[in-house]
Amino acid sequence: MKIVILLFDNYTALDIVGPYEVLNKLPNSKIYLAGLEKKEYKDTYGLKISADNSIDEISEADILLIPGGFGIDNLLKNEEVLDWIRRIDSTTKWTVSVCSGSLLLAQTGLLDGKNCTTHWRRKEQLQRFNVTVKNERYIQDGKFITSAGVSAGIDMALYLVSKIAGDQTAMMFQLAMEYDPKPPFDCGSPDKVPKVMLEKFNK
Amino acid sequence: MKIVILLFDNYTALDIVGPYEVLNKLPNSKIYLAGLEKKEYKDTYGLKISADNSIDEISEADILLIPGGFGIDNLLKNEEVLDWIRRIDSTTKWTVSVCSGSLLLAQTGLLDGKNCTTHWRRKEQLQRFNVTVKNERYIQDGKFITSAGVSAGIDMALYLVSKIAGDQTAMMFQLAMEYDPKPPFDCGSPDKVPKVMLEKFNK
Repeated sequence: MKIVILLFDNYTALDIVGPYEVLNKLPNSKIYLAGLEKKEYKDTYGLKISADNSIDEISEADILLIPGGFGIDNLLKNEEVLDWIRRIDSTTKWTVSVCSGSLLLAQTGLLDGKNCTTHWRRKEQLQRFNVTVKNERYIQDGKFITSAGVSAGIDMALYLVSKIAGDQTAMMFQLAMEYDPKPPFDCGSPDKVPKVMLEKFNK
Repeated sequence: MKIVILLFDNYTALDIVGPYEVLNKLPNSKIYLAGLEKKEYKDTYGLKISADNSIDEISEADILLIPGGFGIDNLLKNEEVLDWIRRIDSTTKWTVSVCSGSLLLAQTGLLDGKNCTTHWRRKEQLQRFNVTVKNERYIQDGKFITSAGVSAGIDMALYLVSKIAGDQTAMMFQLAMEYDPKPPFDCGSPDKVPKVMLEKFNK
């Protein structure tokens, strides 16, 4: 399978590398990181990941993945990127997003009328589109799968592998990356923390 | 804090980016990726991350993080890298590893007599050193924290933040990355799967 991940400045690194670490194990597959230009892109804190291709070198994909990050807001009016996503999506078996990546997908119109989700802090923004925003870790609607914030891309990608290659394969991948999570706190979702903690994010 | 992550060819990308996504949120901190040379390094599947520095430009750190991956085996006899780790460790508040990164730490002698862990497939190899190998997601022994395979680096890094900046800060970071994991299967640890699945890894 040809798996294409959109790269841009000010991405969230784990939005990319979480699903990447799952999907790279798919047999007979190759992952392409594609940016507007073929160059290094920096995440919010300075990590530099290189795009293998410029987006105009990519004309099709089996899986298109749109990661999130603060940089997504700079792309919402970029017609070159929006057109490219629509064009690639017309060739995909699966079009998926992590975190605020669903906002860019929604902006293309491809999520119109669909169930989707995003990072908890982006839900209000996503609700402005013609979509139904769900409180799920990830949600599939047809060939589209959108996920909650950052780390949710790992769960989404394992689910995607189970759809493509079966449960046994997805379980092997999960075991290979020893994904038996034991977070030190039970506070990874806004419904699990006191309101005062959520308010700190707005300061 | 000055946080230094060792970079090398054939690393596992999530070993780096999991803890990176947690630690980059620490206030007044900066993360440096350091390789033998200041250049791009490829993971096992071709992802390219750039080293900001060569290791000889780094003479101290508050936190030193050694990620894992198949490439770790090529470093076990590299005296330049082993000496550098020993030298940096003599300046750190914390020296930590993810996955097979603990093998490189063990090779330096720094883990002698200590409790530690690694990826489930690397435990036999780690047991050959003068260490006590534990079945834990991550384990602290003094200023050293070693973690289980790949994804365990996220849990370890959140624990480390709680030690450095307190539980409230670690909880904020966990919420910011919406780390409320819901893996599609309960199979991320070798004690949770049938033996036949483990045997497939040796084929």
